[in-house]
Amino acid sequence: MMPMKRSLGAKTILYPHPVFVVGTYDREGRPNAMVAAWGGICSSQPPCVAISLQKPRHTYKNLMEQKAFTISIPPEEYMAEADFFGIASGKDVDKFAATGLTPVKSEVVNAPYVGEFPFVLECRVIHTIEIGVHTQFIGEILDVKADERVLGADGKPDIREIRPFIYDAPAAGYVGIGAFLGRAYSAGSKFMSR
Amino acid sequence: MMPMKRSLGAKTILYPHPVFVVGTYDREGRPNAMVAAWGGICSSQPPCVAISLQKPRHTYKNLMEQKAFTISIPPEEYMAEADFFGIASGKDVDKFAATGLTPVKSEVVNAPYVGEFPFVLECRVIHTIEIGVHTQFIGEILDVKADERVLGADGKPDIREIRPFIYDAPAAGYVGIGAFLGRAYSAGSKFMSR
Repeated sequence: MMPMKRSLGAKTILYPHPVFVVGTYDREGRPNAMVAAWGGICSSQPPCVAISLQKPRHTYKNLMEQKAFTISIPPEEYMAEADFFGIASGKDVDKFAATGLTPVKSEVVNAPYVGEFPFVLECRVIHTIEIGVHTQFIGEILDVKADERVLGADGKPDIREIRPFIYDAPAAGYVGIGAFLGRAYSAGSKFMSR
Repeated sequence: MMPMKRSLGAKTILYPHPVFVVGTYDREGRPNAMVAAWGGICSSQPPCVAISLQKPRHTYKNLMEQKAFTISIPPEEYMAEADFFGIASGKDVDKFAATGLTPVKSEVVNAPYVGEFPFVLECRVIHTIEIGVHTQFIGEILDVKADERVLGADGKPDIREIRPFIYDAPAAGYVGIGAFLGRAYSAGSKFMSR
Protein backbone atom coordinates (compact mmCIF):
# COMPACT_ATOMS: atom_id res chain seq x y z
CA MET A 1 0.00 0.00 0.00
CA MET A 2 1.46 3.31 -1.14
CA PRO A 3 1.66 5.88 1.66
CA MET A 4 -0.45 9.01 1.18
CA LYS A 5 1.49 12.14 0.34
CA ARG A 6 0.67 15.43 2.01
CA SER A 7 0.52 18.63 -0.07
CA LEU A 8 2.98 21.28 1.16
CA GLY A 9 2.00 23.94 -1.38
CA ALA A 10 3.97 25.65 -4.15
CA LYS A 11 7.38 26.01 -2.52
CA THR A 12 11.04 26.11 -3.58
CA ILE A 13 12.15 23.05 -1.64
CA LEU A 14 14.48 20.61 -3.35
CA TYR A 15 17.28 18.22 -2.39
CA PRO A 16 20.06 19.17 -2.64
CA HIS A 17 20.24 22.96 -2.67
CA PRO A 18 23.84 24.01 -3.42
CA VAL A 19 25.92 26.61 -1.59
CA PHE A 20 27.63 28.49 -4.42
CA VAL A 21 29.83 31.41 -3.38
CA VAL A 22 29.61 33.81 -6.32
CA GLY A 23 32.55 36.20 -6.75
CA THR A 24 32.33 39.47 -8.71
CA TYR A 25 34.03 42.86 -9.00
CA ASP A 26 32.23 46.16 -8.98
CA ARG A 27 33.06 49.03 -11.35
CA GLU A 28 35.92 50.16 -9.10
CA GLY A 29 37.39 46.67 -8.91
CA ARG A 30 36.20 45.99 -5.37
CA PRO A 31 35.63 42.27 -4.83
CA ASN A 32 32.37 40.87 -3.51
CA ALA A 33 31.07 37.39 -2.70
CA MET A 34 27.48 36.25 -2.18
CA VAL A 35 25.79 32.88 -1.75
CA ALA A 36 23.52 31.45 -4.44
CA ALA A 37 21.42 28.41 -3.56
CA TRP A 38 19.34 28.79 -6.74
CA GLY A 39 21.42 27.30 -9.55
CA GLY A 40 23.10 24.35 -11.23
CA ILE A 41 24.72 23.12 -14.43
CA CYS A 42 22.52 23.87 -17.45
CA SER A 43 24.53 22.73 -20.51
CA SER A 44 27.36 20.32 -21.30
CA GLN A 45 28.60 21.97 -24.51
CA PRO A 46 29.45 24.74 -24.06
CA PRO A 47 29.79 23.88 -20.37
CA CYS A 48 27.44 26.29 -18.59
CA VAL A 49 26.16 26.94 -15.09
CA ALA A 50 23.03 28.92 -14.18
CA ILE A 51 22.61 31.07 -11.07
CA SER A 52 19.51 33.08 -10.20
CA LEU A 53 19.65 36.43 -8.39
CA GLN A 54 17.22 39.17 -7.49
CA LYS A 55 17.82 42.68 -8.80
CA PRO A 56 18.44 44.38 -5.43
CA ARG A 57 21.51 42.19 -4.83
CA HIS A 58 24.86 43.96 -5.04
CA THR A 59 26.14 41.11 -7.21
CA TYR A 60 23.35 41.72 -9.75
CA LYS A 61 24.83 45.10 -10.70
CA ASN A 62 28.34 43.66 -10.81
CA LEU A 63 27.24 40.81 -13.09
CA MET A 64 25.45 43.18 -15.44
CA GLU A 65 28.52 45.42 -15.67
CA GLN A 66 31.34 42.88 -15.73
CA LYS A 67 29.57 39.91 -17.39
CA ALA A 68 31.87 37.67 -15.37
CA PHE A 69 31.75 35.67 -12.16
CA THR A 70 33.35 32.81 -10.30
CA ILE A 71 31.80 30.07 -8.19
CA SER A 72 33.92 29.02 -5.22
CA ILE A 73 32.78 25.88 -3.42
CA PRO A 74 33.08 26.41 0.35
CA PRO A 75 34.42 23.44 2.31
CA GLU A 76 32.89 22.45 5.67
CA GLU A 77 35.54 24.28 7.69
CA TYR A 78 34.44 27.59 6.13
CA MET A 79 30.72 27.11 6.74
CA ALA A 80 30.46 30.22 8.95
CA GLU A 81 32.27 32.39 6.39
CA ALA A 82 30.01 31.13 3.61
CA ASP A 83 26.95 31.82 5.75
CA PHE A 84 28.20 35.37 6.34
CA PHE A 85 28.55 35.84 2.57
CA GLY A 86 24.83 35.04 2.40
CA ILE A 87 23.80 37.32 5.29
CA ALA A 88 25.76 40.52 4.67
CA SER A 89 25.51 42.80 1.62
CA GLY A 90 28.51 44.02 -0.33
CA LYS A 91 26.82 47.41 -0.38
CA ASP A 92 27.52 47.76 3.33
CA VAL A 93 30.64 45.76 4.05
CA ASP A 94 33.79 44.35 2.47
CA LYS A 95 32.98 40.69 3.07
CA PHE A 96 36.49 39.50 2.27
CA ALA A 97 37.99 41.90 4.81
CA ALA A 98 35.37 40.95 7.43
CA THR A 99 36.08 37.22 7.13
CA GLY A 100 39.81 37.47 6.45
CA LEU A 101 39.41 35.45 3.24
CA THR A 102 41.45 36.30 0.16
CA PRO A 103 39.99 37.54 -3.13
CA VAL A 104 42.16 36.13 -5.93
CA LYS A 105 41.72 37.64 -9.40
CA SER A 106 40.84 35.01 -11.98
CA GLU A 107 43.29 34.76 -14.86
CA VAL A 108 40.51 34.11 -17.36
CA VAL A 109 37.61 36.40 -16.36
CA ASN A 110 37.34 39.73 -14.56
CA ALA A 111 36.11 38.27 -11.28
CA PRO A 112 37.65 37.19 -7.97
CA TYR A 113 37.45 33.77 -6.36
CA VAL A 114 37.98 32.79 -2.73
CA GLY A 115 41.63 31.73 -2.48
CA GLU A 116 41.08 29.54 0.58
CA PHE A 117 38.29 27.48 -1.05
CA PRO A 118 39.68 24.44 -2.87
CA PHE A 119 37.42 24.25 -5.93
CA VAL A 120 36.55 27.10 -8.30
CA LEU A 121 34.68 27.74 -11.57
CA GLU A 122 35.47 30.76 -13.75
CA CYS A 123 32.58 31.93 -15.91
CA ARG A 124 31.53 34.59 -18.39
CA VAL A 125 27.89 35.58 -18.65
CA ILE A 126 26.45 34.57 -22.04
CA HIS A 127 22.69 34.96 -21.35
CA THR A 128 20.35 36.54 -18.85
CA ILE A 129 16.77 35.29 -18.55
CA GLU A 130 14.00 36.91 -16.51
CA ILE A 131 12.01 34.32 -14.51
CA GLY A 132 9.55 35.92 -12.12
CA VAL A 133 11.33 37.87 -9.38
CA HIS A 134 14.70 36.35 -10.31
CA THR A 135 17.14 36.92 -13.15
CA GLN A 136 18.90 33.78 -14.27
CA PHE A 137 22.49 34.34 -15.36
CA ILE A 138 23.91 31.69 -17.67
CA GLY A 139 27.68 31.48 -17.24
CA GLU A 140 29.90 29.67 -19.69
CA ILE A 141 32.49 27.77 -17.63
CA LEU A 142 35.85 28.81 -19.11
CA ASP A 143 37.95 26.95 -16.57
CA VAL A 144 37.74 24.84 -13.43
CA LYS A 145 40.54 25.14 -10.88
CA ALA A 146 41.30 23.04 -7.83
CA ASP A 147 43.94 22.92 -5.12
CA GLU A 148 46.49 20.17 -5.76
CA ARG A 149 45.68 18.65 -2.36
CA VAL A 150 42.06 17.87 -3.36
CA LEU A 151 43.06 15.99 -6.53
CA GLY A 152 43.29 12.21 -6.46
CA ALA A 153 46.08 10.10 -7.94
CA ASP A 154 44.07 10.11 -11.18
CA GLY A 155 44.13 13.92 -11.26
CA LYS A 156 40.39 14.14 -10.66
CA PRO A 157 38.86 16.20 -7.85
CA ASP A 158 38.03 14.10 -4.79
CA ILE A 159 34.79 15.07 -3.02
CA ARG A 160 36.16 13.71 0.30
CA GLU A 161 38.96 16.30 0.17
CA ILE A 162 36.81 19.17 -1.13
CA ARG A 163 34.20 18.57 1.62
CA PRO A 164 31.35 20.57 0.08
CA PHE A 165 28.09 20.93 1.94
CA ILE A 166 24.49 21.61 1.01
CA TYR A 167 21.75 23.97 2.11
CA ASP A 168 18.70 22.42 3.76
CA ALA A 169 16.00 25.02 3.06
CA PRO A 170 13.18 23.79 5.35
CA ALA A 171 15.59 23.51 8.30
CA ALA A 172 17.51 26.69 7.33
CA GLY A 173 20.69 24.76 7.95
CA TYR A 174 23.76 23.28 6.33
CA VAL A 175 24.38 19.55 5.94
CA GLY A 176 27.63 17.81 5.07
CA ILE A 177 28.41 15.06 2.59
CA GLY A 178 28.19 11.45 3.75
CA ALA A 179 29.19 8.00 2.59
CA PHE A 180 29.93 6.82 -0.93
CA LEU A 181 26.86 4.81 -1.94
CA GLY A 182 27.70 3.26 -5.30
CA ARG A 183 28.81 3.65 -8.90
CA ALA A 184 26.70 5.54 -11.41
CA TYR A 185 25.90 3.81 -14.72
CA SER A 186 26.50 0.54 -12.89
CA ALA A 187 24.37 0.15 -9.76
CA GLY A 188 21.20 0.12 -11.88
CA SER A 189 22.34 -2.34 -14.53
CA LYS A 190 20.77 -5.25 -12.65
CA PHE A 191 17.38 -4.04 -13.87
CA MET A 192 18.50 -4.15 -17.50
CA SER A 193 17.53 -7.68 -18.49
CA ARG A 194 14.19 -7.87 -16.76
CA MET B 1 50.78 31.23 1.63
CA MET B 2 47.86 30.42 -0.69
CA PRO B 3 48.15 26.99 -2.35
CA MET B 4 48.48 27.01 -6.14
CA LYS B 5 45.39 25.89 -8.00
CA ARG B 6 45.66 23.54 -10.95
CA SER B 7 43.60 24.20 -14.10
CA LEU B 8 41.31 21.27 -14.96
CA GLY B 9 39.88 22.82 -18.13
CA ALA B 10 36.34 23.85 -19.08
CA LYS B 11 34.29 21.10 -17.46
CA THR B 12 30.83 20.65 -15.93
CA ILE B 13 32.00 19.71 -12.45
CA LEU B 14 30.19 21.23 -9.49
CA TYR B 15 29.30 20.28 -5.91
CA PRO B 16 26.63 19.14 -5.42
CA HIS B 17 25.09 17.71 -8.59
CA PRO B 18 21.51 16.68 -7.85
CA VAL B 19 19.80 13.41 -8.77
CA PHE B 20 16.37 14.52 -9.99
CA VAL B 21 14.09 11.76 -11.26
CA VAL B 22 11.96 13.48 -13.89
CA GLY B 23 8.57 11.89 -14.58
CA THR B 24 6.58 12.45 -17.80
CA TYR B 25 3.86 10.84 -19.91
CA ASP B 26 4.12 10.25 -23.63
CA ARG B 27 1.27 10.91 -26.07
CA GLU B 28 -0.30 7.54 -25.28
CA GLY B 29 -0.12 8.12 -21.52
CA ARG B 30 2.80 5.77 -20.95
CA PRO B 31 4.86 6.89 -17.94
CA ASN B 32 8.60 7.46 -18.14
CA ALA B 33 11.28 8.52 -15.67
CA MET B 34 14.80 9.80 -16.36
CA VAL B 35 17.56 11.27 -14.22
CA ALA B 36 18.57 14.92 -14.54
CA ALA B 37 21.76 16.05 -12.82
CA TRP B 38 21.72 19.39 -14.67
CA GLY B 39 19.24 21.58 -12.83
CA GLY B 40 18.16 23.51 -9.77
CA ILE B 41 15.73 26.11 -8.44
CA CYS B 42 15.72 29.23 -10.62
CA SER B 43 13.04 31.53 -9.18
CA SER B 44 11.28 32.09 -5.86
CA GLN B 45 8.12 33.78 -7.20
CA PRO B 46 6.67 32.06 -9.09
CA PRO B 47 8.52 29.10 -7.58
CA CYS B 48 10.39 27.53 -10.50
CA VAL B 49 12.89 24.76 -11.11
CA ALA B 50 15.11 24.38 -14.19
CA ILE B 51 16.18 21.07 -15.73
CA SER B 52 18.35 20.70 -18.84
CA LEU B 53 17.92 17.86 -21.34
CA GLN B 54 19.29 16.94 -24.73
CA LYS B 55 16.89 16.56 -27.65
CA PRO B 56 17.46 12.81 -28.26
CA ARG B 57 16.10 12.02 -24.79
CA HIS B 58 12.70 10.35 -24.70
CA THR B 59 11.65 12.79 -21.97
CA TYR B 60 12.39 15.75 -24.27
CA LYS B 61 9.54 14.79 -26.61
CA ASN B 62 7.21 14.14 -23.67
CA LEU B 63 8.00 17.54 -22.15
CA MET B 64 7.42 19.33 -25.44
CA GLU B 65 4.06 17.60 -25.89
CA GLN B 66 2.70 17.55 -22.34
CA LYS B 67 4.36 20.69 -20.93
CA ALA B 68 4.34 18.96 -17.57
CA PHE B 69 6.73 17.00 -15.38
CA THR B 70 7.39 15.90 -11.85
CA ILE B 71 10.65 15.65 -9.92
CA SER B 72 10.80 12.73 -7.49
CA ILE B 73 13.73 12.75 -5.07
CA PRO B 74 15.15 9.23 -4.77
CA PRO B 75 16.13 8.18 -1.24
CA GLU B 76 19.33 6.20 -0.61
CA GLU B 77 17.56 2.84 -0.56
CA TYR B 78 16.46 3.37 -4.18
CA MET B 79 19.90 4.34 -5.50
CA ALA B 80 20.07 1.41 -7.92
CA GLU B 81 16.58 2.14 -9.31
CA ALA B 82 17.47 5.81 -9.79
CA ASP B 83 20.70 4.82 -11.52
CA PHE B 84 18.71 2.57 -13.86
CA PHE B 85 16.42 5.51 -14.71
CA GLY B 86 19.59 7.28 -15.88
CA ILE B 87 21.00 4.33 -17.86
CA ALA B 88 17.98 2.98 -19.75
CA SER B 89 15.87 4.81 -22.32
CA GLY B 90 12.09 4.99 -22.21
CA LYS B 91 12.20 4.37 -25.96
CA ASP B 92 13.33 0.80 -25.30
CA VAL B 93 11.93 -0.19 -21.94
CA ASP B 94 9.14 0.54 -19.44
CA LYS B 95 11.40 1.69 -16.61
CA PHE B 96 8.65 1.54 -14.00
CA ALA B 97 7.85 -2.08 -14.90
CA ALA B 98 11.54 -3.01 -14.97
CA THR B 99 12.18 -1.64 -11.47
CA GLY B 100 8.80 -2.49 -9.97
CA LEU B 101 8.28 1.15 -8.96
CA THR B 102 4.85 2.74 -9.19
CA PRO B 103 3.93 5.62 -11.50
CA VAL B 104 1.36 7.76 -9.68
CA LYS B 105 -0.53 10.33 -11.74
CA SER B 106 -0.17 13.82 -10.34
CA GLU B 107 -3.43 15.50 -9.38
CA VAL B 108 -2.21 18.89 -10.61
CA VAL B 109 -0.24 18.23 -13.82
CA ASN B 110 -0.35 15.54 -16.51
CA ALA B 111 2.76 13.73 -15.34
CA PRO B 112 3.54 10.75 -13.11
CA TYR B 113 5.73 10.70 -10.02
CA VAL B 114 7.44 7.75 -8.34
CA GLY B 115 5.07 6.62 -5.61
CA GLU B 116 7.78 4.99 -3.50
CA PHE B 117 9.95 8.16 -3.37
CA PRO B 118 9.04 10.32 -0.37
CA PHE B 119 9.41 13.84 -1.83
CA VAL B 120 7.92 15.13 -5.08
CA LEU B 121 7.56 18.37 -7.06
CA GLU B 122 4.77 18.84 -9.62
CA CYS B 123 5.59 21.29 -12.39
CA ARG B 124 4.26 22.81 -15.59
CA VAL B 125 6.68 23.99 -18.25
CA ILE B 126 6.52 27.79 -18.64
CA HIS B 127 9.70 28.42 -20.69
CA THR B 128 12.20 26.52 -22.81
CA ILE B 129 15.63 28.01 -23.47
CA GLU B 130 18.25 26.66 -25.87
CA ILE B 131 21.73 26.62 -24.30
CA GLY B 132 24.29 24.86 -26.48
CA VAL B 133 23.51 21.16 -26.80
CA HIS B 134 20.92 21.33 -24.01
CA THR B 135 17.40 22.66 -23.77
CA GLN B 136 16.58 24.16 -20.41
CA PHE B 137 12.99 23.58 -19.29
CA ILE B 138 11.70 26.02 -16.69
CA GLY B 139 8.99 24.39 -14.61
CA GLU B 140 6.68 26.33 -12.37
CA ILE B 141 6.32 24.34 -9.15
CA LEU B 142 2.56 24.01 -8.63
CA ASP B 143 2.80 21.76 -5.59
CA VAL B 144 5.27 19.94 -3.38
CA LYS B 145 4.20 16.64 -1.85
CA ALA B 146 5.85 14.51 0.80
CA ASP B 147 5.12 11.28 2.64
CA GLU B 148 3.78 11.92 6.15
CA ARG B 149 6.63 9.86 7.62
CA VAL B 150 9.31 12.32 6.34
CA LEU B 151 7.63 15.37 7.91
CA GLY B 152 8.84 16.62 11.28
CA ALA B 153 6.67 17.68 14.20
CA ASP B 154 6.69 21.19 12.70
CA GLY B 155 5.21 19.81 9.45
CA LYS B 156 8.40 20.54 7.53
CA PRO B 157 10.24 17.93 5.47
CA ASP B 158 13.15 16.38 7.37
CA ILE B 159 16.23 15.68 5.23
CA ARG B 160 17.28 12.84 7.61
CA GLU B 161 14.06 11.01 6.74
CA ILE B 162 14.09 11.82 3.02
CA ARG B 163 17.70 10.63 2.70
CA PRO B 164 18.49 12.23 -0.67
CA PHE B 165 21.88 11.68 -2.28
CA ILE B 166 24.03 13.53 -4.76
CA TYR B 167 25.89 12.69 -7.95
CA ASP B 168 29.67 12.96 -7.84
CA ALA B 169 30.54 13.58 -11.50
CA PRO B 170 34.34 13.10 -11.45
CA ALA B 171 33.97 9.80 -9.55
CA ALA B 172 30.83 8.77 -11.49
CA GLY B 173 29.31 7.79 -8.17
CA TYR B 174 26.61 8.62 -5.68
CA VAL B 175 27.27 10.10 -2.25
CA GLY B 176 24.90 10.32 0.69
CA ILE B 177 24.05 13.17 3.04
CA GLY B 178 26.12 13.61 6.19
CA ALA B 179 25.99 15.48 9.47
CA PHE B 180 24.10 18.67 10.29
CA LEU B 181 26.76 21.40 10.34
CA GLY B 182 25.02 24.54 11.53
CA ARG B 183 22.24 27.06 11.14
CA ALA B 184 21.99 29.29 8.09
CA TYR B 185 21.63 33.05 8.66
CA SER B 186 23.24 32.48 12.05
CA ALA B 187 26.61 30.69 11.82
CA GLY B 188 28.10 33.67 9.97
CA SER B 189 26.79 36.44 12.22
CA LYS B 190 30.01 36.49 14.24
CA PHE B 191 31.67 38.30 11.34
CA MET B 192 29.05 41.05 11.39
CA SER B 193 30.64 43.56 13.74
CA ARG B 194 34.21 43.35 12.52
